[in-house]
Amino acid sequence: MRAAIIHGTRDIRVEDRPEPRVHLPGDAVVRVTAACVCGSDLWPYRGVREVTEPKPIGHEFVGVVEEVGDGVSTVKAGDFVVAPWAVSCGQCPPCRNGVQVACEHRASWGGTDEQGLPVDGGQGERVRVPMADGTLVPVPGVAEPDEALTKSLLTLSDVMGTGHHAAVAAKTGPGRSVVVVGDGAVGLCGVLAAKRLGAERIIAMSRHEDRAAIARKFGATDIVAERGKAAAETVRGLLGGVLADSVLECVGTEESMDQALRCTRAGGSLGFVGVPAGGAELPIGVLFSKNITVGGGAASTRHYLPELLEDVLSGAIDPGAVFDSVMPLEDAAEAYRAMDERRAVKVMLVPEGGK
Amino acid sequence: MRAAIIHGTRDIRVEDRPEPRVHLPGDAVVRVTAACVCGSDLWPYRGVREVTEPKPIGHEFVGVVEEVGDGVSTVKAGDFVVAPWAVSCGQCPPCRNGVQVACEHRASWGGTDEQGLPVDGGQGERVRVPMADGTLVPVPGVAEPDEALTKSLLTLSDVMGTGHHAAVAAKTGPGRSVVVVGDGAVGLCGVLAAKRLGAERIIAMSRHEDRAAIARKFGATDIVAERGKAAAETVRGLLGGVLADSVLECVGTEESMDQALRCTRAGGSLGFVGVPAGGAELPIGVLFSKNITVGGGAASTRHYLPELLEDVLSGAIDPGAVFDSVMPLEDAAEAYRAMDERRAVKVMLVPEGGK
Repeated sequence: MRAAIIHGTRDIRVEDRPEPRVHLPGDAVVRVTAACVCGSDLWPYRGVREVTEPKPIGHEFVGVVEEVGDGVSTVKAGDFVVAPWAVSCGQCPPCRNGVQVACEHRASWGGTDEQGLPVDGGQGERVRVPMADGTLVPVPGVAEPDEALTKSLLTLSDVMGTGHHAAVAAKTGPGRSVVVVGDGAVGLCGVLAAKRLGAERIIAMSRHEDRAAIARKFGATDIVAERGKAAAETVRGLLGGVLADSVLECVGTEESMDQALRCTRAGGSLGFVGVPAGGAELPIGVLFSKNITVGGGAASTRHYLPELLEDVLSGAIDPGAVFDSVMPLEDAAEAYRAMDERRAVKVMLVPEGGK
Repeated sequence: MRAAIIHGTRDIRVEDRPEPRVHLPGDAVVRVTAACVCGSDLWPYRGVREVTEPKPIGHEFVGVVEEVGDGVSTVKAGDFVVAPWAVSCGQCPPCRNGVQVACEHRASWGGTDEQGLPVDGGQGERVRVPMADGTLVPVPGVAEPDEALTKSLLTLSDVMGTGHHAAVAAKTGPGRSVVVVGDGAVGLCGVLAAKRLGAERIIAMSRHEDRAAIARKFGATDIVAERGKAAAETVRGLLGGVLADSVLECVGTEESMDQALRCTRAGGSLGFVGVPAGGAELPIGVLFSKNITVGGGAASTRHYLPELLEDVLSGAIDPGAVFDSVMPLEDAAEAYRAMDERRAVKVMLVPEGGK
């Protein structure tokens, strides 16, 4: 089969790989119909995180189950499934607590599982899925989604669930004012999640008209282009003299965390889901004196998948609008370039025969 | 009048001071019937926080209103009142949001108000209280509480409200497992608050039998004497293989914050109220990967006073048990020594004629 392999900084190649197969009773093999590039994939791509050896890449995908092991009971061959960005068992205490990212048996796409067996990357034609019952979520009543539905289902793998996690951690809800820092796919999904959770005033921070347009479509009531202290003062002005109740930090840099803290009112909540890129800090003195609650972290999108899936299937939300580009899997290198250069918000990759 | 003045490291003197009077329409003058020494008073006492000039000290007191300005409407001469540890207006956005510690007009006992007028310290015979309507809470139906009730009312000034804040921030409630780090008055009140909020399993960390005894009286089901990794493993054992849902950090040092984080399960909540003493840090990577929510900070005890007062008056809670010593105000220096040397958990100071 064909799959994207990262060889080093700015070096993505689509290559032949061994066909995945069922190794363990809990395994499934999924034929990928669509995958995508994540903002966090750009870290090894940009050399921010070192690539020590060639490695399959990609952790967001949807597709059709081709085969399952004897121990799998919740999905079967032919099911259309969404794979969350983290592999989890579904049985250990963290999984039962809805914190699948802390699964005691967690494995990562493109790496190996607890037994040392290979787990394929999501940007490929097929994937061996360990602990399929704990990991995969079948999409009821859908055999072959069209492109629009595929896009929305694909966001449930990561970005929509992650934006939702930020919104939940920031205690978004009716009557709350919301600021979203970050206009990438996660930030945009954070806007949509805030709208879905009932926030009436949603301020998105963006300097890019294409991204701001998606934010508005998703429910942003205001767009703020300033940064730093000026941005916080604009927020205060928009909100009648106070800062925001709920702030979603969807980037992970020192600047974005600082921006998020500046925009949070005393007693407010900051939900952070940007993978800390080094430099981002939580100044304990500010949190103490301003009583700012900080929560979030890596999102257990597996936990949120059922409720968000329901809203996607009913048409209540259409997070797939974050995809502004679709390319064949063979063009993965160009997909990375487009996202790296911010020519694309988010690129969907379609393997040959994927659709 | 007589009042405690801090002159420098380990130098507390009770001295003559000008009689406080009403300066502004919003002022009240309160005759102090009982005050106390706070763990945070030990910081300037120990030289951790520099004392640049002699200064009245003390921020926890109860007493009788002697006089009010024309603009005061919620308390009147003769009312028995509790003074929270922070002076707040009650009208600005943070106050309306229940975050009085971030009051836009906040003043501190022993300092000056926004107008530059002197605000007395709590450890004295009388105190000028600015913004009396926003600050003071009258105790209905009580003209002269006995010593036991005085002690419990006095805890509402700071330690009981602060322990409660930690418990709320840690999302304590029915079905949640709780660990309390810190066996000072705040930590002990945190145990009581956790019990009051419905927690069934409450693990207090203590190495002092006198403090552990109070913790048990307040509802602790288990006492853990270990520290560091060993303490976390004991907690995990007590809770059947998982760490705690809710952890209250009631000290403020690097070690106590580390201890608290070690005891929190993935997806759990850490409520921190220990004044950060330098060194305490929030490691963003751990919070991210473990999805630990951190909240708390300086407690708006003014916000919690009405509901806690109701429970004190009904006898539902008896937080006054944290006071294991009562001394005349004139012995303030000895009170500080006793607390500094951990001979006392918490000392109540009674001005002459206070009772």
